[in-house]
Amino acid sequence: MNILKELAVQKLKDRGVKILDIADIVFNLQKKYIEDLTIEDCISTIDSIIAKREVTHAILTGIAIDETVEKDLFEEPINKIIKTDDSLYGIDEILPLSIVNIYGSIAFTNFGYLDKTKPGIIGKLDTLGKDGKQCHTFLDDIICAIASSAASRLAHKNRID
Amino acid sequence: MNILKELAVQKLKDRGVKILDIADIVFNLQKKYIEDLTIEDCISTIDSIIAKREVTHAILTGIAIDETVEKDLFEEPINKIIKTDDSLYGIDEILPLSIVNIYGSIAFTNFGYLDKTKPGIIGKLDTLGKDGKQCHTFLDDIICAIASSAASRLAHKNRID
Amino acid sequence: MNILKELAVQKLKDRGVKILDIADIVFNLQKKYIEDLTIEDCISTIDSIIAKREVTHAILTGIAIDETVEKDLFEEPINKIIKTDDSLYGIDEILPLSIVNIYGSIAFTNFGYLDKTKPGIIGKLDTLGKDGKQCHTFLDDIICAIASSAASRLAHKNRID
Amino acid sequence: MNILKELAVQKLKDRGVKILDIADIVFNLQKKYIEDLTIEDCISTIDSIIAKREVTHAILTGIAIDETVEKDLFEEPINKIIKTDDSLYGIDEILPLSIVNIYGSIAFTNFGYLDKTKPGIIGKLDTLGKDGKQCHTFLDDIICAIASSAASRLAHKNRID
Repeated sequence: MNILKELAVQKLKDRGVKILDIADIVFNLQKKYIEDLTIEDCISTIDSIIAKREVTHAILTGIAIDETVEKDLFEEPINKIIKTDDSLYGIDEILPLSIVNIYGSIAFTNFGYLDKTKPGIIGKLDTLGKDGKQCHTFLDDIICAIASSAASRLAHKNRID
Repeated sequence: MNILKELAVQKLKDRGVKILDIADIVFNLQKKYIEDLTIEDCISTIDSIIAKREVTHAILTGIAIDETVEKDLFEEPINKIIKTDDSLYGIDEILPLSIVNIYGSIAFTNFGYLDKTKPGIIGKLDTLGKDGKQCHTFLDDIICAIASSAASRLAHKNRID
Repeated sequence: MNILKELAVQKLKDRGVKILDIADIVFNLQKKYIEDLTIEDCISTIDSIIAKREVTHAILTGIAIDETVEKDLFEEPINKIIKTDDSLYGIDEILPLSIVNIYGSIAFTNFGYLDKTKPGIIGKLDTLGKDGKQCHTFLDDIICAIASSAASRLAHKNRID
Repeated sequence: MNILKELAVQKLKDRGVKILDIADIVFNLQKKYIEDLTIEDCISTIDSIIAKREVTHAILTGIAIDETVEKDLFEEPINKIIKTDDSLYGIDEILPLSIVNIYGSIAFTNFGYLDKTKPGIIGKLDTLGKDGKQCHTFLDDIICAIASSAASRLAHKNRID
């Protein structure tokens, strides 16, 4: 059993993110390119991505930062800068590169697209974060990274030549 | 006088891209965030970006590849892979990172967004390339990079604290 | 006054890093390329780099993570993975990309070189971290990023054409 | 059969690079970390890396640029900038990121280290390029990328937990 992976999936759930939420985003990204794509394909692809050590490290680190900031345990002013998801704070977009880079340029461009358009659970996390009770500054970008990486992997696997 | 910059602007024009075409994209990206933004602000920001050595190098290299491929001077099969802008060919999205990286994470996420949505001149280049007479495989992504970098620079300059 | 910058310099000092320690590394990287380079040139270049918002954000976030891990305040197992600087944990090398990317490919290649060779204060932080009393998992890579960015900036400024 | 891979291996050979030359570099990078490492392990790891589509695309594009520049077929001044491997020209270090990124941060830091220290075939290509008869501006960096990616993959595969 991949203990780090089980833990990452559990932490995502604890923070309000189900694998199916991510699968919905992936399905909407790729359905126009892959004719017979199913939600099950998306789920199993996400599953294989979260099994990678680099990905579990990114998920667990990002959520650890969010939770620490939520409890105001980082020194000021960096705690507040992260908590308010300051528009010029960019570390939350840099950390998920450890996921996106592994899956190539389709992952990379979809990452930017999802970060701007915030569909489904990504937008929901963003709104919850802006209410100030929860902090999802890193988590929403990590979800963008997992979804865009899954989209890229599906595109590559679907190629037959 | 910055000779490399003058040359880069001229090559862009020769390949069908005016600075104003890029400014339109930047204006549409940033108008909702910067109340009194003008097209002139966008033009002068693009101007300062194209003045940088890394940016002229990227523009001149990308266009040189496109033109060489257009004349079928690269060996096969790489000439054809680039000419048809194969969806799994990702070098054209990697090269513009030499521009985007300099301008931080707002540039980076907007790059992916523009690459997916292809507004204005970006979509026009993409369509011309797909007709097969011209090759703009690298140029369209370079325009995405210049526009997204200008959007990022405007966001940073507009911050007063 | 740039308050974030003053704070970043103070936090570096609190964690055992003086600007002069970084300047020594930069001087050794660039002295063979720039004939009349002085330690003062290196100090003022580092100074201009630390003045940038992206750089202060990276410094303050990296040190905040290190300090939190030192106090065992992240959940396990991620606290231990970061504390022991596990060789397959790579988030500490990803975060400083927010600094390195801004300064182009000379910064990027020097970053890898410094990370492998660990001269001066970088090696000292690494050894202190491995003793287990302190955690400098993120800080040593951030120092690599500042030093390599300063080397790149000096190379570009020294070019006269 | 993977035709693109066979072609990439052949082009490397035509340009003076044998897989064994790359394996020597990988062996020297990793022998101190992996006790029973053999040259055969290095060769088979390089083999699996060159089999990836992104990697063959990078190899074939980089060599196509080098060969075109060698024949002076790009317009000036970019042909000369690439031919002389101008120290401020950084596109040759950006293109191999399409390889390095896939293999994570151990690949990334080793890439910078190899680019600075230029062991074995990397230094040989660099010297041949500086004589002006051949152009290996892109190829030497691509070899750095393949070797550093192989080092990273071996480090990950050698981990048993």
